[in-house]
Amino acid sequence: MIQPNFRHEINGKKLATAIAQDHETNEILMLAFIDEEAYKKTIETGKAHYYSTSRDTIWFKGEESGHIQLVKEILFDCDKDAIIFRIEQTGGACHTGHYSCFYQKLSDDNTTLEDVGKKVFNPDDIY
Amino acid sequence: MIQPNFRHEINGKKLATAIAQDHETNEILMLAFIDEEAYKKTIETGKAHYYSTSRDTIWFKGEESGHIQLVKEILFDCDKDAIIFRIEQTGGACHTGHYSCFYQKLSDDNTTLEDVGKKVFNPDDIY
Repeated sequence: MIQPNFRHEINGKKLATAIAQDHETNEILMLAFIDEEAYKKTIETGKAHYYSTSRDTIWFKGEESGHIQLVKEILFDCDKDAIIFRIEQTGGACHTGHYSCFYQKLSDDNTTLEDVGKKVFNPDDIY
Repeated sequence: MIQPNFRHEINGKKLATAIAQDHETNEILMLAFIDEEAYKKTIETGKAHYYSTSRDTIWFKGEESGHIQLVKEILFDCDKDAIIFRIEQTGGACHTGHYSCFYQKLSDDNTTLEDVGKKVFNPDDIY
């Protein structure tokens, strides 16, 4: 099986980087890290799994919220240490209730972040 | 000035992650890391700069090849440790001559990587 190159030592653990991207619109939904186990679980189940550097464990995205990511396609970059999960997102990717975690736009004078994201659920209802 | 949260220790250095995305098509072109200096240079010049974890130094993308990235917009994720440079790419982003570094698609049986990328220049002419 083809695997990413888990070559970056991130917070003490060898990992690769994974970007979740909407497979229809190309919108970027989140960025996270993966270890070998998270990658294999993703391949096995067709649902995105990641490695949490703060909790030091793999996590199944949407396990708690139900907002899972169905993986339609996987792309590798030139040195294979970064991959893209092209996904179909159930609900929203972000714990804040936004469809994408990248919902803040830097203002032209670089002093503020403006919320430009699409809110798709109320986090109080979910978490 | 708003700054990313350089909270991940990656190969011994505190960094944030940056994704370069085509500002018109949403295609993801590359993933790299940034430190405070690379971020500030990007803001100052309007051209993407990154931090190389292999060479332990910041680099101006396109310095050698001329294939620079004009930054049109910057998006921050929920915990601000990952950002998106929405860019206009001159030439191609990848040293292989592809427009995007993510030019390899994992086959359905997970055993091969197929080149699905757009080749935009001959690397022998550039490097």
